[in-house]
Amino acid sequence: MSLNSYGHLFRVTTWGESHGPALGATVDGCPPNVPLSETDIQFWLDRRRPGRSKHTTQRQEPDSVEILSGVFEGRTTGTPIQLMIRNTDQRSKDYGEIAETFRPGHADITYWQKYGIRDYRGGGRSSARETAARVAAGGVARQALKQLAPEVEIFGYMVQMGPKVIDRNRFDRAEIENNDFWCPDAGVVGEWADFLDHLRRKDHNSVGAMIEVVVRGAPAGLGAPVYGKLDTDLAAAAMSINAVKGVEIGEGMAAAALTGRENADEITMGENGPEYSTNHAGGILGGISTGQDIVLRFAVKPTSSILSPRQSIRKDGTPIEVVTKGRHDPCVGIRAVPVGEAMVAAVILDHILLDRGQTGGIRGKIGPS
Amino acid sequence: MSLNSYGHLFRVTTWGESHGPALGATVDGCPPNVPLSETDIQFWLDRRRPGRSKHTTQRQEPDSVEILSGVFEGRTTGTPIQLMIRNTDQRSKDYGEIAETFRPGHADITYWQKYGIRDYRGGGRSSARETAARVAAGGVARQALKQLAPEVEIFGYMVQMGPKVIDRNRFDRAEIENNDFWCPDAGVVGEWADFLDHLRRKDHNSVGAMIEVVVRGAPAGLGAPVYGKLDTDLAAAAMSINAVKGVEIGEGMAAAALTGRENADEITMGENGPEYSTNHAGGILGGISTGQDIVLRFAVKPTSSILSPRQSIRKDGTPIEVVTKGRHDPCVGIRAVPVGEAMVAAVILDHILLDRGQTGGIRGKIGPS
Amino acid sequence: MSLNSYGHLFRVTTWGESHGPALGATVDGCPPNVPLSETDIQFWLDRRRPGRSKHTTQRQEPDSVEILSGVFEGRTTGTPIQLMIRNTDQRSKDYGEIAETFRPGHADITYWQKYGIRDYRGGGRSSARETAARVAAGGVARQALKQLAPEVEIFGYMVQMGPKVIDRNRFDRAEIENNDFWCPDAGVVGEWADFLDHLRRKDHNSVGAMIEVVVRGAPAGLGAPVYGKLDTDLAAAAMSINAVKGVEIGEGMAAAALTGRENADEITMGENGPEYSTNHAGGILGGISTGQDIVLRFAVKPTSSILSPRQSIRKDGTPIEVVTKGRHDPCVGIRAVPVGEAMVAAVILDHILLDRGQTGGIRGKIGPS
Amino acid sequence: MSLNSYGHLFRVTTWGESHGPALGATVDGCPPNVPLSETDIQFWLDRRRPGRSKHTTQRQEPDSVEILSGVFEGRTTGTPIQLMIRNTDQRSKDYGEIAETFRPGHADITYWQKYGIRDYRGGGRSSARETAARVAAGGVARQALKQLAPEVEIFGYMVQMGPKVIDRNRFDRAEIENNDFWCPDAGVVGEWADFLDHLRRKDHNSVGAMIEVVVRGAPAGLGAPVYGKLDTDLAAAAMSINAVKGVEIGEGMAAAALTGRENADEITMGENGPEYSTNHAGGILGGISTGQDIVLRFAVKPTSSILSPRQSIRKDGTPIEVVTKGRHDPCVGIRAVPVGEAMVAAVILDHILLDRGQTGGIRGKIGPS
Repeated sequence: MSLNSYGHLFRVTTWGESHGPALGATVDGCPPNVPLSETDIQFWLDRRRPGRSKHTTQRQEPDSVEILSGVFEGRTTGTPIQLMIRNTDQRSKDYGEIAETFRPGHADITYWQKYGIRDYRGGGRSSARETAARVAAGGVARQALKQLAPEVEIFGYMVQMGPKVIDRNRFDRAEIENNDFWCPDAGVVGEWADFLDHLRRKDHNSVGAMIEVVVRGAPAGLGAPVYGKLDTDLAAAAMSINAVKGVEIGEGMAAAALTGRENADEITMGENGPEYSTNHAGGILGGISTGQDIVLRFAVKPTSSILSPRQSIRKDGTPIEVVTKGRHDPCVGIRAVPVGEAMVAAVILDHILLDRGQTGGIRGKIGPS
Repeated sequence: MSLNSYGHLFRVTTWGESHGPALGATVDGCPPNVPLSETDIQFWLDRRRPGRSKHTTQRQEPDSVEILSGVFEGRTTGTPIQLMIRNTDQRSKDYGEIAETFRPGHADITYWQKYGIRDYRGGGRSSARETAARVAAGGVARQALKQLAPEVEIFGYMVQMGPKVIDRNRFDRAEIENNDFWCPDAGVVGEWADFLDHLRRKDHNSVGAMIEVVVRGAPAGLGAPVYGKLDTDLAAAAMSINAVKGVEIGEGMAAAALTGRENADEITMGENGPEYSTNHAGGILGGISTGQDIVLRFAVKPTSSILSPRQSIRKDGTPIEVVTKGRHDPCVGIRAVPVGEAMVAAVILDHILLDRGQTGGIRGKIGPS
Repeated sequence: MSLNSYGHLFRVTTWGESHGPALGATVDGCPPNVPLSETDIQFWLDRRRPGRSKHTTQRQEPDSVEILSGVFEGRTTGTPIQLMIRNTDQRSKDYGEIAETFRPGHADITYWQKYGIRDYRGGGRSSARETAARVAAGGVARQALKQLAPEVEIFGYMVQMGPKVIDRNRFDRAEIENNDFWCPDAGVVGEWADFLDHLRRKDHNSVGAMIEVVVRGAPAGLGAPVYGKLDTDLAAAAMSINAVKGVEIGEGMAAAALTGRENADEITMGENGPEYSTNHAGGILGGISTGQDIVLRFAVKPTSSILSPRQSIRKDGTPIEVVTKGRHDPCVGIRAVPVGEAMVAAVILDHILLDRGQTGGIRGKIGPS
Repeated sequence: MSLNSYGHLFRVTTWGESHGPALGATVDGCPPNVPLSETDIQFWLDRRRPGRSKHTTQRQEPDSVEILSGVFEGRTTGTPIQLMIRNTDQRSKDYGEIAETFRPGHADITYWQKYGIRDYRGGGRSSARETAARVAAGGVARQALKQLAPEVEIFGYMVQMGPKVIDRNRFDRAEIENNDFWCPDAGVVGEWADFLDHLRRKDHNSVGAMIEVVVRGAPAGLGAPVYGKLDTDLAAAAMSINAVKGVEIGEGMAAAALTGRENADEITMGENGPEYSTNHAGGILGGISTGQDIVLRFAVKPTSSILSPRQSIRKDGTPIEVVTKGRHDPCVGIRAVPVGEAMVAAVILDHILLDRGQTGGIRGKIGPS
């Protein structure tokens, strides 16, 4: 039972601190014979990389991944895949003054209370930098999905930044890749940019966000009730991401306000199987996928590191006013989009393997070919 | 890896179907020397029992629990505790007609697609009746907490039923036990009762709800980042409950709309340790408890079994109009309150054991006493 | 992580004490659509039942199993299967005097030291009676194997009782079922019977035994290196059985004395795939099955409960001479044969499921049949 | 559920292949505040390193370990510790010819059959080189034990090489470190050296061995029945090591030949608790430690890579005579001694943590010191 691991058969253990020598992911249970290179994984890491636009932290971390094991001649072998990312842009001196201080909203104080020791540089293990390892592992899951279930698509996007929400009538999937916010509504992008600019530069503030991740093309039957339910695993995956405070499937919290008649997804028989009139359920019934779009939403709190002074204490209990300098994301939710996608990819692959077996039906033949 | 189990050291496996001979929970990892009787557990089961008021299903299930193992002379022994509840009020004939039909909003169709067989009586394994086993296991957790951490209080209540929410200014914890809705706001109880009455009797409809569970008095330091985080485990625990579609900690989904300045819980030094100006975090930072109230919220969708006709299909793909007769809860969220409490109790005990060890520091002495 | 559970996907949790109300097994991960009745399981339980011959304990426990969940209309549903065996022949008074005493060779003292409480009646949880639950679970595994891999045969037998070993030249599988010792060598049965008779009746003593279990017909490719190796799982399964002190695969401990040339199993190509000149490896290379017979051997220590007086202490540290009355097996190894078979069946099924997926490839079809 | 992991709370996942870029261990669950440096771990790795004497392989692998995470300012932080060993002396060309061939006694054929792909260089994942990662993880366990339970000693030694066994009357623990065989009997060392010399140089052969590992000073009460028993976990740990074919606790397989009177360890009350007249049990009763020496023994088969030709087949089924060149250990059992110790250290620490909690009772204080 590793408490730094997720997944049943596709089992990922992340390791590493923000300012240690390296961080990474030990990926066990990837099926054999999946084409996999560092380039494949780098593609996904680059989407999460800091410094892509002025709206994210200006730290320069190349986040270059190195595959240390589990791949032979360009294909996975079914053995553990070790992914390592060296930490390079470590300005540890930025963090010297917080060695004795607990930053409000951060895990400084709870790590100290729990462990009696903490790597305070950049938040150490509790830094959002840990999510780079998740994105790398998600890259492996993507490659395996491409091989085992090429019909499955997974895509995430921001639906809200602070008080500003998208207009779903303008939803355009193609737009997601066209702006700095993974925003599917071109109509709000300019407004979001101005809002965030002002917040960061003038207001010395930060803001929360809401992310949605959709799985399209997943077969019916994924999920393992009653405690390996697909929605249970997705909720845990999302809630385990730094700064996430809420998780929803389909109607989510809004389901509390509905009546049974409104909420029913009626069923008809289509050409390729059952079809549903609506998708209040978010593609999951009883913890098992229906074959519809699986819809996950999660809220990311505003970055706690802001230039505005906040009241706190030192380790010795004395009061201190904290102003968090450094190069921080004004809206950490932006970079949470690829993280959410990566976690969802891992969960979906995991359940496909539960369905098909550890090696996905592979066998080595012996005899004349 | 049992997919019907939850918990790390305090490990609960539920088993059983709605209309089988019995259902129950195998509870492994309860510390030894905890006073435990059937009466202790029955107390909690009775809170979830159907038929407590006109606002819940009128089925009559006594839900009497029998302890089959793990207790000797009134105390736990550290070995697995088997809890069995015989099913008694089984009107299987009520369900005969759904053997070939998939009820909208239910897991009938996905269980069939996944397993190729299903116990269709009352939803079988996917019935909310399974939560009785969770409540029984929660009763064991409550007894262990009373022994190991008597300062911990866990209480749940409804904060919303359909469109109607409580007024938090009228919040009164004592009121929770005084009405049929576990509602902490006496001012809305009458309105809720009328609303639900009309919905059930006139409108043949059902409604969703939102439940909040608070943990008071838990020590700082509980939670095991980065994947056994306390909020991750609470989110999974809540999302695994039947009909739950969303889960929040502290500010929850609303955190998306906040700025960093608004969201910061400032820290001061109190007499007994750190104190916080606010609790936007819901008592958890970086996945570890702060010592503040831990605040979990979850949304329960409206009961899918309603008397209003909905469109669906039979197993052979032909269309059918489904009207779900039988004795169903108009708002299954009411009975989800004790279920939520039970899941939270299990999670909290689990993390206390991770902190203190499997047997909670017990040792048998040999020698003159 | 239940510490009373074994198996990866086919996950068995045993529960119950010798003299409690009942004992049993929670079996999670059995594939759906496997024909299963109480009679199917009872068949295997009856082989372990006490009182089958004068060479085993004369306790009369019918060990009737009741299936409480997971089976619908004679077939498994893929949900947890609860197996319960009520304890009936409980002469608790036989054990009254050992409440304050630690019997040499038993777990009385270590359970006390660990838990600070113990159900002393008949050894409580540490009683060999717990293995009835394993045999019941093994019966489920046998049924699933019959369905998923009918070519697999699993059979165990005794190869040694105290100083007396079988002559492998006289090995006759058909003989195993013909005597009271599951002995494959008819030539030694009389001698064994006399030896055990004398030991029990005249010498007030007991004796150890060695059991061998063979898996025939298992496919190549089972096993999950490097820590879910097939031999690792078999070793753990055998060592977890009460009174087992050693476990071997193939040559086992004797491999220490061999040279590389002697130990090599040479390979040739047969009609149906690779063939091996010998089977020193016991059917497992690198933790993965080769397709040959899988050969597991384990040693069972002599029953610690004997009528001869042995020196010990009471809980208060004062000395006492212990004579264990009651109805005990003179050679508990005899009844360990069906237990060993059951554990092996569970391990083999588990690895077949790892290979094929949780539900073994089942899918429910929707549409005209 | 990682199938490349061992341990409950102290959880080690090994990764890496013989000739890949690196191999290592992800160590999760090490308690915080344990002093740990690369030098501490290197000490143990050096004992396993090839080329220490003419009796082991002459490959030159420095096996330098790098700590990539989980340590801050010389102390563990309670977060995952990543240990990496770069592979350096990779003569991959030595292995080119076995790409299409299955070496008898090796896992070449079963890995191929299972995965349909294998890194054939040096055995890939199935190489004994993987055990370097276990020794590194064992080094972490040793450091944690030194901190949490300094009275615990763990030491291994060879008791048999091929047909040659030690004389236990000459057992001298100090001698173990003085010779090339970790042999506690100075009187046989010369004979063993000559025997192995001849085997390797003249006979082109290899030989098996038997290793014993003793845990001295462990407290009573370690072990988690009935499936996390201390002997179960030790058996699995030992059997998972490459080339191990048998595992024993205390009397082990010889227990089969004993009577109950012979096998009883009688108990008396000593100054510091219970004492035992003998230790047939090997320090474990009912799966729980008694406080006596814990005695584990395991047999290592002879190295399969020998210069003598053996019959085998190619991937296409055609026959081939295999002569394994390269630099191989004539008795791989020698280097299995530190591996066995490392696995035992991990198991003992794991059970101490189960007893005391994940962080071993650590808490960070806030306030004036």
